[in-house]
Order: sequence, then structure tokens, then C-alpha cells
Amino acid sequence: MSDSGGFLSQAGAEGGESKPIGIGLLGYAFMGKAHVNGYRTLSYMTWPSPLQPRLVSIAGRNEQAVSAAATRFGFERYVTDWRDLVADPEVELFDNSGPNNLHGEPTVAAAEAGKHVICEKPLGRTAEESYEIWQRVAKTGVKHMTAFNYRFVPAVRLAREMIDAGELGDIHHFRGRYLQEWGPTDAEAWRFDSQAAGSGALGDLGAHVIDLSRYLVGELDSVAASTRTFQPGREVDDAFEAVADFENGAVGTLEATRFAAGRKNALSWEINGSKGSLAFDLERLNELQWSEGTSGFRTILVSEADHPFWQWWWPHGHVIGWEHTFVHELRHLLDAIADDTDVAPHGATFEDGYRVAEVCDAILRSAESGQRERITYR
Amino acid sequence: MSDSGGFLSQAGAEGGESKPIGIGLLGYAFMGKAHVNGYRTLSYMTWPSPLQPRLVSIAGRNEQAVSAAATRFGFERYVTDWRDLVADPEVELFDNSGPNNLHGEPTVAAAEAGKHVICEKPLGRTAEESYEIWQRVAKTGVKHMTAFNYRFVPAVRLAREMIDAGELGDIHHFRGRYLQEWGPTDAEAWRFDSQAAGSGALGDLGAHVIDLSRYLVGELDSVAASTRTFQPGREVDDAFEAVADFENGAVGTLEATRFAAGRKNALSWEINGSKGSLAFDLERLNELQWSEGTSGFRTILVSEADHPFWQWWWPHGHVIGWEHTFVHELRHLLDAIADDTDVAPHGATFEDGYRVAEVCDAILRSAESGQRERITYR
Amino acid sequence: MSDSGGFLSQAGAEGGESKPIGIGLLGYAFMGKAHVNGYRTLSYMTWPSPLQPRLVSIAGRNEQAVSAAATRFGFERYVTDWRDLVADPEVELFDNSGPNNLHGEPTVAAAEAGKHVICEKPLGRTAEESYEIWQRVAKTGVKHMTAFNYRFVPAVRLAREMIDAGELGDIHHFRGRYLQEWGPTDAEAWRFDSQAAGSGALGDLGAHVIDLSRYLVGELDSVAASTRTFQPGREVDDAFEAVADFENGAVGTLEATRFAAGRKNALSWEINGSKGSLAFDLERLNELQWSEGTSGFRTILVSEADHPFWQWWWPHGHVIGWEHTFVHELRHLLDAIADDTDVAPHGATFEDGYRVAEVCDAILRSAESGQRERITYR
Amino acid sequence: MSDSGGFLSQAGAEGGESKPIGIGLLGYAFMGKAHVNGYRTLSYMTWPSPLQPRLVSIAGRNEQAVSAAATRFGFERYVTDWRDLVADPEVELFDNSGPNNLHGEPTVAAAEAGKHVICEKPLGRTAEESYEIWQRVAKTGVKHMTAFNYRFVPAVRLAREMIDAGELGDIHHFRGRYLQEWGPTDAEAWRFDSQAAGSGALGDLGAHVIDLSRYLVGELDSVAASTRTFQPGREVDDAFEAVADFENGAVGTLEATRFAAGRKNALSWEINGSKGSLAFDLERLNELQWSEGTSGFRTILVSEADHPFWQWWWPHGHVIGWEHTFVHELRHLLDAIADDTDVAPHGATFEDGYRVAEVCDAILRSAESGQRERITYR
Repeated sequence: MSDSGGFLSQAGAEGGESKPIGIGLLGYAFMGKAHVNGYRTLSYMTWPSPLQPRLVSIAGRNEQAVSAAATRFGFERYVTDWRDLVADPEVELFDNSGPNNLHGEPTVAAAEAGKHVICEKPLGRTAEESYEIWQRVAKTGVKHMTAFNYRFVPAVRLAREMIDAGELGDIHHFRGRYLQEWGPTDAEAWRFDSQAAGSGALGDLGAHVIDLSRYLVGELDSVAASTRTFQPGREVDDAFEAVADFENGAVGTLEATRFAAGRKNALSWEINGSKGSLAFDLERLNELQWSEGTSGFRTILVSEADHPFWQWWWPHGHVIGWEHTFVHELRHLLDAIADDTDVAPHGATFEDGYRVAEVCDAILRSAESGQRERITYR
Repeated sequence: MSDSGGFLSQAGAEGGESKPIGIGLLGYAFMGKAHVNGYRTLSYMTWPSPLQPRLVSIAGRNEQAVSAAATRFGFERYVTDWRDLVADPEVELFDNSGPNNLHGEPTVAAAEAGKHVICEKPLGRTAEESYEIWQRVAKTGVKHMTAFNYRFVPAVRLAREMIDAGELGDIHHFRGRYLQEWGPTDAEAWRFDSQAAGSGALGDLGAHVIDLSRYLVGELDSVAASTRTFQPGREVDDAFEAVADFENGAVGTLEATRFAAGRKNALSWEINGSKGSLAFDLERLNELQWSEGTSGFRTILVSEADHPFWQWWWPHGHVIGWEHTFVHELRHLLDAIADDTDVAPHGATFEDGYRVAEVCDAILRSAESGQRERITYR
Repeated sequence: MSDSGGFLSQAGAEGGESKPIGIGLLGYAFMGKAHVNGYRTLSYMTWPSPLQPRLVSIAGRNEQAVSAAATRFGFERYVTDWRDLVADPEVELFDNSGPNNLHGEPTVAAAEAGKHVICEKPLGRTAEESYEIWQRVAKTGVKHMTAFNYRFVPAVRLAREMIDAGELGDIHHFRGRYLQEWGPTDAEAWRFDSQAAGSGALGDLGAHVIDLSRYLVGELDSVAASTRTFQPGREVDDAFEAVADFENGAVGTLEATRFAAGRKNALSWEINGSKGSLAFDLERLNELQWSEGTSGFRTILVSEADHPFWQWWWPHGHVIGWEHTFVHELRHLLDAIADDTDVAPHGATFEDGYRVAEVCDAILRSAESGQRERITYR
Repeated sequence: MSDSGGFLSQAGAEGGESKPIGIGLLGYAFMGKAHVNGYRTLSYMTWPSPLQPRLVSIAGRNEQAVSAAATRFGFERYVTDWRDLVADPEVELFDNSGPNNLHGEPTVAAAEAGKHVICEKPLGRTAEESYEIWQRVAKTGVKHMTAFNYRFVPAVRLAREMIDAGELGDIHHFRGRYLQEWGPTDAEAWRFDSQAAGSGALGDLGAHVIDLSRYLVGELDSVAASTRTFQPGREVDDAFEAVADFENGAVGTLEATRFAAGRKNALSWEINGSKGSLAFDLERLNELQWSEGTSGFRTILVSEADHPFWQWWWPHGHVIGWEHTFVHELRHLLDAIADDTDVAPHGATFEDGYRVAEVCDAILRSAESGQRERITYR
């Protein structure tokens, strides 16, 4: 094990206000790697951070793999049972980057052990499970965050700020979709297993679209949806399509699919308001398209000094990548912990995770019933 | 009145096979102008045409306006009652470019008088009306065409040919939308009057999306939809959103709105198949986006010598415009008349017009009922 | 021969002010077809035109071909010797759409016979020849136009208007290029023959770039250039590249090539000024990219009612094509003839044709000498 | 000072092959920050690296600032005189991220002290200075790299691999430009001082264009150029434009400017070959445009598992940013040091830095002389 604690918990540049916070990470695959990179990078790029991540412990079932991950990523130790992470007194923030069926129990246990918690999306596999996670964690008083990282794309935050400032006027439409193309392959088999994943494209990709629709437009009133499983033998949806009615009168579509050949990672949305329109595509995540009134779309390369998050990066035009969303997200969480401020509205709480799950459930119900389904919260 | 018959009915270059066909046009506004330009242009650009349009007579209620239109566009005479057009023995093709509430009666009368007919979309204001038009016209044996001109965009025809050739494999998704921005204005007031227009964005814009979905993907099985009227006091929809289930298992979305600031004339669609994807946007109508498998999208500038319709135009890369769709459409109709061949499948018949109307009705029913509505045909 | 004179010379709608003007056309290939379409279309689309083109006579050496063209395009008669066109008293406007080596003598003869003249570009094959054509024609007092049709793209005219209004401030850069890809083929062999064509990509494509640089930025002071002939055995350049110094202090590049695989008809330019930048690409000719200051580029879909030329066309967003440049250009010429106004500044005169030729010659001299060559006018 | 050595020099995952390499960094501004981020990130993302950067010492003249930088970035110590860096026995790799006038002496001193060296571009302020740096460093036998980081954009490397594989055939054209917009401001004043910077846009931006032209197309034969200083009172060029003749017969343009409003960081190039064309724009650095033959341009989102550098990052479609070029570049250098392999051809050596400087000098000479200037090497 390497001792990275020293570096990562170093004193802040301005008066020694920075102090370490012990991180315990569950999972070392795709999401685990993205979160670690977030912690490591924020420690010197978002300078000065009020809390400096100290990579205390990482948990995984395969000892050889988790041991290698600990070495590579600089954790002080590793464990093969997440319960040891929860029991570790030096872990102050529990980061759940594990598969969906490991979201609930460990996260609740960690919170009940007094640790702040961040959990990958979807929070639970169903609205019911998500609700229970939220409720039990909320009772403990710790900070909780659902890792809807796309709220932390600078262009998305800028869009939210423009909407908050009234620049779009009344919102008429939201058109959100998350298109990927790897559905025909058998990569990451757990994602097709209903017990492990809960749902397919819906929970994996659609949850992001739903979260952004709530973040940018507001609460959903109802959905009417269809789902498809194109690949024989799969238990989960490969795609869904939904009409979404919003409480504020806007109407739009929500979609996700793993069967859109040529679309690599195309989370895109468009919002039409009475005063203008915004459009975004994750494959060009540094760009926000903005039509002021009917003037036509202007490409804002979101990288100016006064753009969200940009004070931490480079001269304008020197664009950032997908991974930076985690840097911003985790720094936001550390700020909330350090200052005891709300994770909401810019960060997604477990309540947000639960609310997205209710929409997901309503989409599945509608696909089954053939009825437009109201979104109701417990 | 000028005598344009001479020019327009001139002999073909190759053996004098071309003969004149008398055109009677109802309407001289936006659509009338587009149709006239189509007739005039096809007569020398799509050379040699088996039939040469002879602009016999134009009908409109305002004598001063219709008289001026006749002069401008080169009709031999004008009338202020469409019945005179129907009664005119020199009119062989009746072109109905009038408002929606004048689609039914004149068109049926013309067909029953033995004239071939083309009618602007939507065919009728309801499925019932459309059905009756279709049935009565079909009985007469004349050629009939619903003017879904976007089938005649070279890129759209090319897409259809690629799909027919199996290049996309199984179709998984169709994502079609027609976005315009002029909804907040009061231009063309008849379009907001339910008696005159039948519906709003649905019949005006959505009908095109539905027609293209049928042309490119196949018959719809069911729809689940919502509509909106954003502008107070309007009788018709300003927008609709629908989930569409296709008979072949594809699933997608259909949308139209007049409230998308910044979108001028954005009829766009994307099709994802098991072997590749296609995408199109009317604002860049010369381009077809094609991802062969997951290779990424290539811009086909549809203007090569072997592309659809291109034998009539220019060296490749010398792009055409929106109006050219009418040139292709009307030439297609003249070919069907001259050769006594079917207008379908590339041209939309009145049956197609009726079938689109059934989908429109189902969308309105679903918006009302909150249920996914099956598309059934009488 | 058909009698189209009746139609094309019909009275104007508003007070009978319109009168016919007899057109004599030399050439029936690519350019001839484009010009005919321009005359025919402007007669009813740019309504009311002060002069109505009457297609009197067309000239070509191959009798069978020119006869067929006359029939197809609606000319009253044809001739196989251009001198008969010049001698025809009913020809009032002589349109030279022939190959480059037929630009000089017929055009001068027509003007000296009192006919207005329009000549395809390049005006002459050399500056010397162009100068003589200009001088001799100017002496006659007829209207003369060099057919630099890209000045009549609505987006280009809009750019010029914005520059004239000071919206770009001081111009710093012009970056113009015309890229095509058909160089490796042997189509249109006369274009590779130095006697017939004068130069290759330079006179054919580069002349357009040079003309637009003068139209948009101002006179050139000097050029430093290289040329290439990639295909063995050709007498003319396949490509040139030049650094251009403008009199007003701007600096930029001029380029043309027939060897840019994937570029179909890519005449593109970008202008950077102290207050903003404009960019254009002919393959998307309906779009003008405009960055107001450093705000980022906005896509202006040049099709609003108040955009140049748009009063003649369609509702906004219903885009036009390449061929429409000729409609605008020829209407501009008819206006100048009817009203006895200057063809300049929006239309290119023979002086403009000559000045472009001086720049072309300087480019060839510089390629040869290895020196930056000043542009001087006789 | 924190002790990050432990972390950064940790053993490799596969057999303990990794060993630490001590880094001494001169400069802590824009480039220094980018290099530090490169070292820190490569240590766990490009896993396993044969050498693990150990951040030994950082040098800067302002003690308060360099001390803060050392704390922030995790250096073990700091110095205010670069000579102390050179004298430090624990510094094994000297990284010169200082201003241009500090490139020569410290870099040579470090190499002569036996340290490997990487130096920001331009290597020297003139060809003469660059030549001396190269010659003196080459004699020492250490590894040397000029930090032309854009060679390490995945799309650029992929382009090079395609060209090497003959996929473009013979290269006809290279069209390279680097456009920025901040020229009218007075940020970073040293960049306008000829003693400190050597040249303006030429050395700062143009050097990148020239380097990529050599990397992708080959050696330049001659240039013909103009320069401009738009802002009164500046000693250096704000822009240059050049025609470039390549030894292999290709011809093209090279440009750089700081006066292109709306262009944030637009390093773009296009290459036309006999078998296809490639195009790139740094503002969309994850995309490579590829026209196979004349098929039209396809967007390759360079993020597939088999794309250059991508084995280190994320699932395909999860795009990276500007800063990642430094991760790739520095890892490349560490590989060369660890394995004693050549930095060339994918990395730029000091010879490459010198050769670019010769081209820069020739551009300045040509702008002065008005002659096409041959590129010759000492």
C-alpha cells in the first residue's frame, strides 16, 4: 500500500483551512475509476478545496483485483467485504460505485455508521427500494448525494443558470434522449440481469435523462411510455420511449436506447421556451447551443472565465472531457460537507434519486398498462 | 391572360412523345405558388417529361387576386368558383392547393368529373373525412396523390432505397419531429381555426412526420400522445408528442410543434437499425447522415449523378432547395398518369392520406383518453 | 420551336409596366442551362420584374444539340453561328455562357451591335484579354456584367450588407477557398486545355474566391502564390495557394483546388473583423455563421422575410439552392437595364471581371517568380 | 511540503517493474499546471507506467507563489533559482515550462548535468538559438523532447497512423491554421515582448501548425508569407499567413492569428490526399473527419478501444479534453527514458524544435523580403 494520505490531506494554500476527509470506495470498475480520478484531480485542480480527500480504503470481492486497484489508485488499504469499509473509523465519506444491487444495504449501513454517502445512480432498483434508502439515510443526518454527474457538465449548469434567470421564459418543450450503440454486444452482463440491474437502458441511461429533465424543467406530472427488449433472452429493457407531461405545462419526450448504431454516448436534450431555446449533446459536451428568441442557434464554447466551474481549469477554448463532471460533483459534495450546506439544488440528493426512480417505475407501469401514468410520491 | 400553353405543351426532344396535360389549380397562396413553380420547372428541367403541363385555369374566391395570379403564373384563364374548374373540359389534372376545409368536396367532384387529382395534405380534417375522399375518388379510377412532398427530397428517397435494400437491417427506432417557431405570431389565422384546419401542428406538420414514418419504417401499431395549446384562445393544438409503436417491432417518437424558438423549418428524423443509422434535417435537406454499422455518421451530400432525381439537376455539390420537392413530386404524378402506373409506393396516394389521418385521430384520442390507442383502418 | 415569348413577355401585374427583353444565349451546357433556368424562374418568382425575358435565340455549333436545347428551353429559334445571334435585331441582351475561349470576340461583337451583355467568368483568359473586352464593351455604353453569381447568394449579400454597416469593424482576415474533388477524372476536357480555358482551378474556381474577396473586403494589394498540376499531362493548374495582402491592411489566403477528396463544391470563406467574424460554405449556402464580437458563431438561416432576395421566395426556413443565384443575378441585370442604373457595386461589371483577371495573372506570375507580386491595373 | 513521493513512485501492479523518476519543474503558470496535471494523472491512469513521476522540486522567481504552487501540486520542495533545480541530484527529468527567454540556458544546463529534458515550444526564440540548444543537448546523450503536445491528441495520432498506412495515398494539400481571439486584450504581456517571446502568433500558435504539418505531411521546401501587427505598439506579429511548399509535392497554407473573433482555440487542419481527406479542429478534439475517397466526411469519435491512447481511458464515447495531450506526451517521454527508445517519430525532439524554428525564421524572412524562402537546415 502506498501512503497517499500525506499528499491528499496537505494543508490548504490559504491559511491551513483544508483538512483531510477519509474516503472509502466500494467498487473499482468503470465508476470506481472515474470517482478516484475525481478525488485525485480535485485535490489540486479545484484549489483550495476545503476538504482534501484521503483515500483510506477500497472494497471489492476479488482480493487480487482490489489489491491491485488499491496500489494503482493509492488507497491506504483494501478490504474484500464492504462491511469492513463501513466499520472503518477513518472512512468519513462512503462512496458507493458498486453495481445496482449493492446500492441499498451498504449505503444505508454506512450512513447509519455516521458516514456521509454518495451512491451511483440509479439509487435503488425500484422506487420502493430507493425510497427506503433515502428515508433511512435521511434520518441519520449525514450528507447524501446520488451521482447524477451530468448536472456537473459546465454547459448543463450554465443552462440551469440561464433558465433560473428567466432567459428562456416559459418552458414549452423538453426533448431528452440518451443513445448508445453497444446493446447488441454482451459486454457487462450484469447490466442485462434484472436482479442485479433492476432495469436496462431505463435505469442506466434513462435515469440521467429523467434527472436532467427535473433539474432543468421541473417535476413531471405523468408519462406515457413503451419499452423494448430487442435482444432475445434479456430480462431488461433495451430501450424506452416516453411522452412526458411536466407540472409547469411543458411537454416533451424522454428516451434511452442501447441500440442506436453510430451514437456513442449521445445524451442530448433540447429545451424550447417562450424566449429562446437551448440544446446540448454530451458527445460535444463543451458546447451549449443557444437561440436567443428566434435568432438561430449560437455555439457557446463553455470555457470562458465566468462560466460554471471554469475558474478551476484552463484558458478559454481549452476544453475538458467527460471525466471532469466527477471532479465538479465530488468537489460540490466536499463543499457541502465542509460547510454543512445543502447538496441540493445543484447536487442530486437521495430524494432526487428516489424521485427519478418513481418516474422510472411509472414508465414501466405505463409500458405495461398502455395508460398514461401519473407520477406520485410516497 | 397569356398563352403559355404553347411553351408548356411543346413536343419532347426525343421523338415527339410528349403531350400536354391541362392543369387546373385551386389556390394561389403559399402552396399554389409552390405547385406552379413545380409545373413550370419540371417542363424543361426533368426533360423529357412524358406530359407537359399546360396551365389552363386557376381558381380563387378573390377575383382581383386570382386574376393577378393567373397573369403572374401564366394560366390561360381564371375562375372564382372551383366548380368552374371542375367543369372545365380542358382541365385534366385537378390540383387542390387550397385550405384544409376545401380539400374534400372539390377534389371528389373533380375526380368524379374524370380528372386526375392531387391534394395538399392533410387530405381531410379527420380520418372519417379522409376516408370518404379516398373511397369516392378511388371508385372513379383516376390517379390520386396526397402531396406529401418530403418523400421527394433526394435524401429521403435515398434513405428509402437504402432501407429497401436492407442496408439498415432490422429497424429499431424512428425519431421524427417537425419543429417550427412561428406559433406565438398570428400569421395565417385560418390555421388556428378548427373548422378550417381540422387540427393545428398535428395536421400541418405532424402529418408529414407520420407520413415519413410510414414511408420509411412501415405501418404504425399504436400511439400514446399528449397535445398542448400554448396560446390562449386557440382552438387547435400548438404541439403534440407521441410514442409510436410500429408493426415491425420498431418503437420511436413523433412530434410537431410551432413553439420551438430557433427552429425555422426543422423536419428531422433519425432511424436506427441493426446494421446502421440514418439521420436527416430539412434545414440541410441536401445532406443525409449515414452510419454504416457503428462507424459514425458520414455526411452524404445527396447530389451525385446516381442519387435519386439528380439526373435532372446539376454537377454534384450544386445543391437544390425546398421547392424542388414539388418538381419531383409532380413529375412523378405525370409519369403515373402517362404510363398508367401506380402512384405508390414512392408517391402518397389518397389511401396514404387517409392512413395518416387515422394516426392523427389516434393521437388526438390518446391525448384525450390517456390511453395508448391502436391504429385501425376502416 | 415553341412560342414562349407570349408567356415570358406578359404584362406586369401592377400597371403593365413590364415589357419584354429579347435574350440571345450562347451555350447550352451547364452554364447555359443555369442561365435559362434563371430567366424562366425570375419571370414569375421575382414578380413583378420590370423586364420579362423573351427567349429569342440560342447559339451552338452542334445543330442537333442546339435544336434540342431550343425546344427544351423554349427559345423561339436557334443558330449554329454566334454571329447570327449578334445580328439578330430581336436579341437585346446577349448572354455568353460559352467556354472561356469564346468569351471575348462574341461578347465584344454583341456589345458593339448595341446589345447588353453578360459573360460567364472568367471574363478573358488573361488580364490582357479581359482588359480589351472591358474597354471595348465599356465604350459602347451597354450594360455589362461578369457572371460572378456567388455575389447573389443571400448569405453573401447579407455579409456584404453587414460589412457595409460596420458590423465587423476593421477587417483583419479573409480566408477564402474553393475546393472540389473531380480533378483526377477527365470530365470536361476543355477545362484542362490552356488555349480553351486559359488556366485551370485558378480561373474556374479561384476567380470566384478572388471576386468575393474584392466584393467583401476590398482591393488586393499583392499576392504570393504557388500552383500545382498534379495530373501528368495537363497544361493548366490543378490548384493554387496564395497569401493575399489587401489595401486596407487585411491579410489572408486564397485557394482553389480540384483535388480535395470529399469536398464537392466547397466555396468557403471566413472574415475576421475587429467587431466580429463571418463564415460561409457554399455546400450549406442557406447558412451564414456570425460571431458578434467573441460571442461564438450563430447560424443565421438566411431565409427571413427581411433577408436579401427573400421577398421573392418562401416562408422562412424553406431553403433555396445553388441555381437561385442566377435568378437573383439576372434579375439584378434586368433591373439595371430597365432603370438604367449601375450594375455595380452588387453586380460584377466587366471592370470587375478584368480586375479579377489581374489578380489571377499576378498569382501565376508569383508562382513562377517566387516573388510577392503587386496587383496593378492598366 | 507534502511527501507525494511515496504515492507517485509506488510499485507497478505487475511485478514491481515501476520505479520513480524525479521531476524538476521550471514554471508554475499555465504550462506548469498542465504538465503537473499530466504527471499526476499518468501515474494512475496510464497504468502501469514504467516510471512513476516523483515531484521533487519546482522553481520560480516569486517565492510566495512558487511555495504555494509546491504545496498545491505536491512538490517535495521549491527553489527560486533554476540553477538549484539543475544542481539537485534527485531531479532526473528537467521540465522547462517557463517563458521562451528561459528556454535555452536552463535546458542546456540541465542536460549537461545529465538530466533528461523536456522544453515547452518554441524551443528557442530563433532558429539559431534553437539550433544551439539542440546541438548542445544532443551531445549529452540525454532524452530531449519539445512539448508539441498536439501530436498527442488521439485524433492527430490516428491521422498519422492512417497516413503512414497509405490510406490517404499521395498528399496533395495541407491546410493548417491556429486561430485565437484574445489579441486585442493585453493579457500575458510578455507574449508581446520580442525579447521575451521571440515572435508573436508565429512562435506561440504557428509553431504548432508547422510542427503538425511536418508530423503529418513531411518536410517543408519553402514558404511565402506575410505577417501583421494589428495592435499599435506591439513588437511582435499578431498574425501570419503563408503558402507552404512541401518536399513531397504537396502544397498548402499555414496560418496563425490572435485576431479571429469567435475562434477560441481553433487549431484546425485539413489534408487532401489522392485516396481521401482528413480534417480536424481542436475545439472538437475528440473528432476526426475522414472522407474515404470522395465518399464524404465521416465523424470518427476517436474513443474506441483500439484508438490511440484510448486503452487508458473510458468506454467509447466518453470523451477527453485538452489537458490529456500532456498525459500522453509525458507518458511517451517516460517510456523513452525507461526503455531507452527514441522520442521520435511520435514525440518531437529538440531537432524537431529546431526545424520548426527554421520554418518560423523563413516565414519572417519571406514577410520581409517578399520572396518565397527556401527552408534550409544548418
